[in-house]
Amino acid sequence: MQRILSGIQPTGRFHWGNYFGAIRQYIALQGQRENAFYFIANLHALTTVRSKQQLARNTFDAALDLLALGLDPNKATLFVQSDIPEVSELCWILMTATPMGLLERCHAYKDKKAKGLTADAGLFTYPVLMAADILLYDSNLVPVGEDQIQHIEVCRDVAGSFNHHFGETFIMPKPYVVQDTAKVPGLDGKDKMSKSYGNTVEVFEDLKAQKKKIMGITTDSRPMEEPKEPAGDPLFTLYSLFASKEQTQTLAETYRRGGFGYGGVKKDLAVLAENYFAEARARREELSAKPAEVRDILAAGAQTARKKAAEVLRRVKENCGV
Amino acid sequence: MQRILSGIQPTGRFHWGNYFGAIRQYIALQGQRENAFYFIANLHALTTVRSKQQLARNTFDAALDLLALGLDPNKATLFVQSDIPEVSELCWILMTATPMGLLERCHAYKDKKAKGLTADAGLFTYPVLMAADILLYDSNLVPVGEDQIQHIEVCRDVAGSFNHHFGETFIMPKPYVVQDTAKVPGLDGKDKMSKSYGNTVEVFEDLKAQKKKIMGITTDSRPMEEPKEPAGDPLFTLYSLFASKEQTQTLAETYRRGGFGYGGVKKDLAVLAENYFAEARARREELSAKPAEVRDILAAGAQTARKKAAEVLRRVKENCGV
Repeated sequence: MQRILSGIQPTGRFHWGNYFGAIRQYIALQGQRENAFYFIANLHALTTVRSKQQLARNTFDAALDLLALGLDPNKATLFVQSDIPEVSELCWILMTATPMGLLERCHAYKDKKAKGLTADAGLFTYPVLMAADILLYDSNLVPVGEDQIQHIEVCRDVAGSFNHHFGETFIMPKPYVVQDTAKVPGLDGKDKMSKSYGNTVEVFEDLKAQKKKIMGITTDSRPMEEPKEPAGDPLFTLYSLFASKEQTQTLAETYRRGGFGYGGVKKDLAVLAENYFAEARARREELSAKPAEVRDILAAGAQTARKKAAEVLRRVKENCGV
Repeated sequence: MQRILSGIQPTGRFHWGNYFGAIRQYIALQGQRENAFYFIANLHALTTVRSKQQLARNTFDAALDLLALGLDPNKATLFVQSDIPEVSELCWILMTATPMGLLERCHAYKDKKAKGLTADAGLFTYPVLMAADILLYDSNLVPVGEDQIQHIEVCRDVAGSFNHHFGETFIMPKPYVVQDTAKVPGLDGKDKMSKSYGNTVEVFEDLKAQKKKIMGITTDSRPMEEPKEPAGDPLFTLYSLFASKEQTQTLAETYRRGGFGYGGVKKDLAVLAENYFAEARARREELSAKPAEVRDILAAGAQTARKKAAEVLRRVKENCGV
């Protein structure tokens, strides 16, 4: 049996980059409820979010967003990380089998240290919590972006170290590198849409604000008449995320021909983007009027996840004698 | 209300050094069941013990030893650390509020690193688990030896950092430096009896082995006739642990007068030590024939501890939004 596991950090509202770069692909992997686990990683978010209102709000928003975007509680188990105490228990146990060198080599910590910033132990040790997230459910397939392969490797090393000390205990997870992730440029023309660049549009952005943001997308000042190469043009790339193949092809031809205004493309993009998420937006509206229903979905998800977690943790404790 | 908390690592059987240097004083602090928490720190022991049989056995032995030595379930709450999942939950939460610098300065890690040994993340982060141990029960008085004051300081710093981020949450614990700890020399005449020197007598050592060990205590080869200074003499110091004030005074006079054999002193010591622990030994015998009763005591202890733990963890989670 394959169990897919995917964790999503509730550090803010999802933007187009999150959606087209990851969430869409992850949701597409759902199938049977028992085999597709998705969790909102609020314990990880604690390393950066320092406001209880914000973290609680982000966590609930992430659930709403995911459900609105198509995560189906009949085809997947959705839960909040902190509802599974077993993950913290396993985290400590794994900590005792994790060589320091493994953690010292991890990017997030190295980068922060290289910048001369002071890190918390949470940032340093979060690959151990991530290993616990994965190993606790006998997950064998973990969809990740290229930049997260290291985390799966650390997880495998930690599992291997524990297995070495205490005998075969953990199933070795494999990274499933998501291939068709779209590259989403920022509104400012930067290569990447990212909250830290402040160049994002949220998936459920207020429509008026969204239109304004789209109309403000950075473009060049070449004359309208000039033919232009669509490939690599940020506006064209954003347009193609929402357009059909035919629409995209037509716009590419227009670019190459010249004699068009960016303003018109932006207007079209605004309409396409609005339509693209219209259904999800309606579903979100509906769900946010029924918070109890969302909480029930999360509670049912936690129950399913805890059942598996308890089984694996029992095996772990038995094998190490605690 | 004062709550006393004391953790005991189940890394092996207790020896005279453990008993006279710490355990005796800790047990003396028991009073009301709700206010005196003692736990067997098996999650900490995981950083060094790598055998499930040994760790499980050590944990149960520690419970038997403590109960035999006078820990009274009516006057204290005795439990096993890993029976309280909340402690691991709190440990992760505190990790996110612990500056790396705090942990890098801690002795155990620094010492190991200075020796060029590779450490596990468990050794590096165990002061965070220790902070969780203390803070989880609103403990305000933690009996420690001089060498452990740093741990309480780290705990206070971590609590302070969390309180700073999320508002007043934790009660600040105070170290209670145990003053009347006896200095227990080793059988080889070394200043300190310690497992790592291999110069110990276990509290519940087999009596025949115990007598042999006592008869083998290292002494000097001065002639019997020569007067000797008792202060600082290892054999005299060991004798005085078990002897009454009068007996000790008499032996001191004998030393100063000269004209006695060390062999005779050792024989007396063997008798004194046997008598000193005779009652505890009988109680241990009795208890080890009723393992279910011991397990019941630990289960009842865990129940009491979890009640308090759940209350504090709820407050913590509420304050940080998870």
